[in-house]
Amino acid sequence: MKLTILGCYAATPRTFTNPTAQVLEIKNKLFLIDCGEGTQVQLRKNKIKFSKINRIFISHLHGDHFFGLIGLISTFSLLGRTTNLHIYGPKGIKEIILLQLKLSNSWPNYELSFTELASKESEIIFEDDKVIVRTIPLKHRVYTNGFLFQEKENDRKLNVAAVENYKIDTCYFLKIKKGGSVTLENGTVIANEELSFDGPAPQSYAFCSDTAYFEAIIPIIANATVLYHETTFLQSEAELAKKTLHSTAKEAATIALKANVKQLILGHYSTRYERISLFKEEAQTIFENVKLGDDGASFEFDSLILKNNQ
Amino acid sequence: MKLTILGCYAATPRTFTNPTAQVLEIKNKLFLIDCGEGTQVQLRKNKIKFSKINRIFISHLHGDHFFGLIGLISTFSLLGRTTNLHIYGPKGIKEIILLQLKLSNSWPNYELSFTELASKESEIIFEDDKVIVRTIPLKHRVYTNGFLFQEKENDRKLNVAAVENYKIDTCYFLKIKKGGSVTLENGTVIANEELSFDGPAPQSYAFCSDTAYFEAIIPIIANATVLYHETTFLQSEAELAKKTLHSTAKEAATIALKANVKQLILGHYSTRYERISLFKEEAQTIFENVKLGDDGASFEFDSLILKNNQ
Repeated sequence: MKLTILGCYAATPRTFTNPTAQVLEIKNKLFLIDCGEGTQVQLRKNKIKFSKINRIFISHLHGDHFFGLIGLISTFSLLGRTTNLHIYGPKGIKEIILLQLKLSNSWPNYELSFTELASKESEIIFEDDKVIVRTIPLKHRVYTNGFLFQEKENDRKLNVAAVENYKIDTCYFLKIKKGGSVTLENGTVIANEELSFDGPAPQSYAFCSDTAYFEAIIPIIANATVLYHETTFLQSEAELAKKTLHSTAKEAATIALKANVKQLILGHYSTRYERISLFKEEAQTIFENVKLGDDGASFEFDSLILKNNQ
Repeated sequence: MKLTILGCYAATPRTFTNPTAQVLEIKNKLFLIDCGEGTQVQLRKNKIKFSKINRIFISHLHGDHFFGLIGLISTFSLLGRTTNLHIYGPKGIKEIILLQLKLSNSWPNYELSFTELASKESEIIFEDDKVIVRTIPLKHRVYTNGFLFQEKENDRKLNVAAVENYKIDTCYFLKIKKGGSVTLENGTVIANEELSFDGPAPQSYAFCSDTAYFEAIIPIIANATVLYHETTFLQSEAELAKKTLHSTAKEAATIALKANVKQLILGHYSTRYERISLFKEEAQTIFENVKLGDDGASFEFDSLILKNNQ
């Protein structure tokens, strides 16, 4: 998996900071998560191919998470898109988009479909042969979901030496990769474990923004490879966080710790603070593996290398 | 009057070009005209005070002219605005905005009001002691209006020498500036013309975007100080202009010539062309006083000096 953060600042777009949007790449498929105003320009700046985005997940209907959606949908049309586009988001999002398309008399040439969410329980909202996406119901001022993206079990790796040793025909290789055993001509059954190694461990990504400190999410996101958790405030503004149903850096780190995730990425910073490194410093008093999200930062989950110049 | 162009490119926002939005300053009041996606960031970049914008005029409901409006309305709220905001735009704009405010549960703290337009005849939509604003019905794929901003007659200038000569008390000065005569103690009436000079000629600004070549606007915009007319295409794409109900540079210049305006400013350029100077070159084959609009350009109408580095 590879995560590119297009925007991760709270509230309004500013000259040098963007509201929430990020692109998750899983086995060459792109998933767009949230779509604040200016997301389409951020996609261009980060050289992400518009045509590879087929599914967009919107956490909630506060403007800094979806005001860029109608513009992106329209731009897809202007770019001549023909592939289906599917939007997942809170009930109401369909009405907002369709009303604007109707009044602007600009119906897209491609098929636009919606899955509207209303459940307060975690549910599977998308699944194919590679990935499964579940909602993570969050606690915020309006109905909000995070999203958990889980890779499915990867194929096993062929044990080339063993396969050659048993002189197994190539036509069995796919079966072995999928975990099957092989029966030789003499009737001997060779167990899969003898012919293959474990494939790479499946990765998972939990996006949790916006939310108050909310322990109910822990069982859903437990053991995730990467957790992106909002931290609008520092602990010094804990009262404000409580009032606005946002989290502090310490709270985000506590969730990471209790859920036993491998890596925490922070974001959704209030612009009131002088430097975002303050969030990392506070979080690391609770949980060690913290990275700072930032506009334009990208993370490869194998190495969790931050590619920009932070 | 002073015009600041925040964005003047057609269709989608891009890394270095912005969709339509401009700010017209008339006697220290700011009028925002159109509000494409990213307008609030352009306002910041151009150091325009958000709090001075109290009236927003939307030409039509194509995305590149209004997708930034909901974000700006929301940002006004986040910035703690309390002053009324009035939106003028096509029927339907109120429903679009209110639906999003309702679903995001983010009703502004300030009073938000709408004048929805549906007439195909030019009408006065705003008037105060300084300015009068009329619609300019345009010809486009959806219901569209341009806007004509006309300063009211300016005060006359006091003839200081004459006033001193007649020993006229300062309490008459305002009356003289407003065009009144003065009766001296001996009963002699001094005509206003003896005591004052003409004030500066009232200026006017006609915004016409988007529109096909449409001669019906000529009587409305006749003799305007400045006409901003769209020129999405060059004459080489005249067929495309006709089909999409846009104008070429030559057509924009023809309207300027026939309407006898003092100055033409071009904008709403398709990004297909290598350089925007092509639009100016084509327009000047018809009409001499042409300036190129560009994102960040500002124009003082007294001097029509372009302040950016074009």
